[in-house]
This record gives sequence, C-alpha cells and structure tokens, in this order.
Amino acid sequence: MKFFEDFAAGERVEIGRHTFGADDIKAFARRFDPQPFHLDEAAAARSHFGALCASGWHTAAMWMRLMVDYQRGEDEARRARGEAVATLGPSPGFKDMKWPRAVYAGDTVSYSTEVLATRASNSRPEWGLLTLRNSGVNQKGEPVISFISTAFVERRKAAP
Amino acid sequence: MKFFEDFAAGERVEIGRHTFGADDIKAFARRFDPQPFHLDEAAAARSHFGALCASGWHTAAMWMRLMVDYQRGEDEARRARGEAVATLGPSPGFKDMKWPRAVYAGDTVSYSTEVLATRASNSRPEWGLLTLRNSGVNQKGEPVISFISTAFVERRKAAP
Repeated sequence: MKFFEDFAAGERVEIGRHTFGADDIKAFARRFDPQPFHLDEAAAARSHFGALCASGWHTAAMWMRLMVDYQRGEDEARRARGEAVATLGPSPGFKDMKWPRAVYAGDTVSYSTEVLATRASNSRPEWGLLTLRNSGVNQKGEPVISFISTAFVERRKAAP
Repeated sequence: MKFFEDFAAGERVEIGRHTFGADDIKAFARRFDPQPFHLDEAAAARSHFGALCASGWHTAAMWMRLMVDYQRGEDEARRARGEAVATLGPSPGFKDMKWPRAVYAGDTVSYSTEVLATRASNSRPEWGLLTLRNSGVNQKGEPVISFISTAFVERRKAAP
C-alpha cells in the first residue's frame, strides 16, 4: 500500500463489489450465524426480514476480503513501477458498525473506503495511524454497512 | 431467549469457548482475510505477529456462532419447562470492537456477555433494547476481543 505520508483526509476509493448468492449466504451462516433467516428461504419469509439475507458478519468479513485483494493489486502495480510498498500494521479495532438494511440473496454490495483523518503515532515513530470510514451500498445505492476503522501504516524512512 | 423484562444490568453469562486450530484459521483466512500471517506458519513467523494467528473477523464471527448456540440451548430448556420463548430482533449494530491481543493457533477463547443497560423502545413498544458488552479471553485469561452490541428483544405482552 501507499506510505502513511501519501494518504490525505477526504480521499476515497472503491475497493470492490460482491454479489451475495443464496448458497454463499447459507454456507457462512451454517458455520457462523445459524439463524433461520440466514439459512432457509421459507423460514426467512416468515421472519422480520421477509426473505433470505446475509449475516451482518458475512457482509463485514467480505469487506476485509475485498480490502486485502484491493491492496494486493495496488502493491503489484507499485512493484511493477519500481516503487516501494508500505507495510500495513495491526488493526487496533474499529467502531460504530452499522447494518442499516439487510443484504438479501442476489444483492450486490459495492464497498468503498474514505480517509477521515491521518495522525502520526507518538509511541511508534515508524507508523502513522489512519482513521477510515468503510461503507457498502447495495445495487440500488442503499447503505447496508458502515463502520469506522483505524489502521497503522508504515511511514517513509526519515532522510538521514 | 428471555423476555426483555427478565434482563437486568450487571448480569453476565459464559456463552461458550472455541479452540482456533491452524486449519480452521487458514480456512477462514483463505475466504475472508488472505493475509500471510493468517495463512502460513513460516510467513507468520516473519510478521509482526510472530506466529500463525486468526483473523479478528474470525474471532468475532465465532462469538456470533456461540451466541446463537447458547440461545438455542436456553430456548430448548425453556420450552422443555413449558415456558414461553422471546424473539430476538434485528441488531442495529455494535461499537468499540477491540482486538487487544492476537489469537494464535491452538488458543482457546472463552466468550462471555454482560448486560450493561436495558431500555424500552419508544418507537417500537413491542421491543426492548439491550446494551451488551461481549468479551473473549484466551486460556491464560488475557483479553483478545471485546465489543459493545445492542439488540432488540421481545417484551412480554402487556396484561389486557
């Protein structure tokens, strides 16, 4: 990925999209969220959701997957241009996860990430800290997921 | 589950435990978080984590699984006693996800949930809102995950 110094508040990127098929939704739910409205069309029709829909944790985990793929593609492009690639550090966590609307079988979610703030780390001078707003909208443009994450990103080496 | 009126701030339950095996960690990572330190022992040894460890999203998703299993067991016991079972409503989301320490291959995480607050819903009189602190500790008792969730829970029908 880019180095910390190359990020600026306000920049926003589309990281990718994923269509949540019924089999995909059920496979995740069997392993991690076996509630009837994530497992079975008929049970879901009788639930408050009204139709088969993805676990919120599935929608969130797919963000992670697309973010990793996006960064990998960016890194390959950087290396092909002979540029240095920065290391992404551990995530201290995130906040304000919201699932404002269900993701139904067949929905396509487009994910994006916006830089809200950049801050040097006092305790870890080799890292900077990014605050990101991560969002997903369905094919109608309706928000289905949003959360704020923080991430450590490598800084450029100071000139000697 | 219990009805909203039967929850009280301060109550805490152990919902279950899970041992994160290396194959389990890698299978999740291949699908949702294909970073080297979640996929390969040798690459993980060279990373800032020092050894193969689980995606934070895997640790979070396993909380959901254990919570569903726990509630299912509680509901079966209630039905066996001839008691009514309340419906769990949609989750508006959660906040303050923290992964204070990595979950390494072979670690066993014990998850618990504590009721922080209970509040009637003005807009939805048939539901009450719970605020929960969900936590996981490893086999040494060290915190590895915590987050605050909110959940709608069915209220008892008002006496006619």
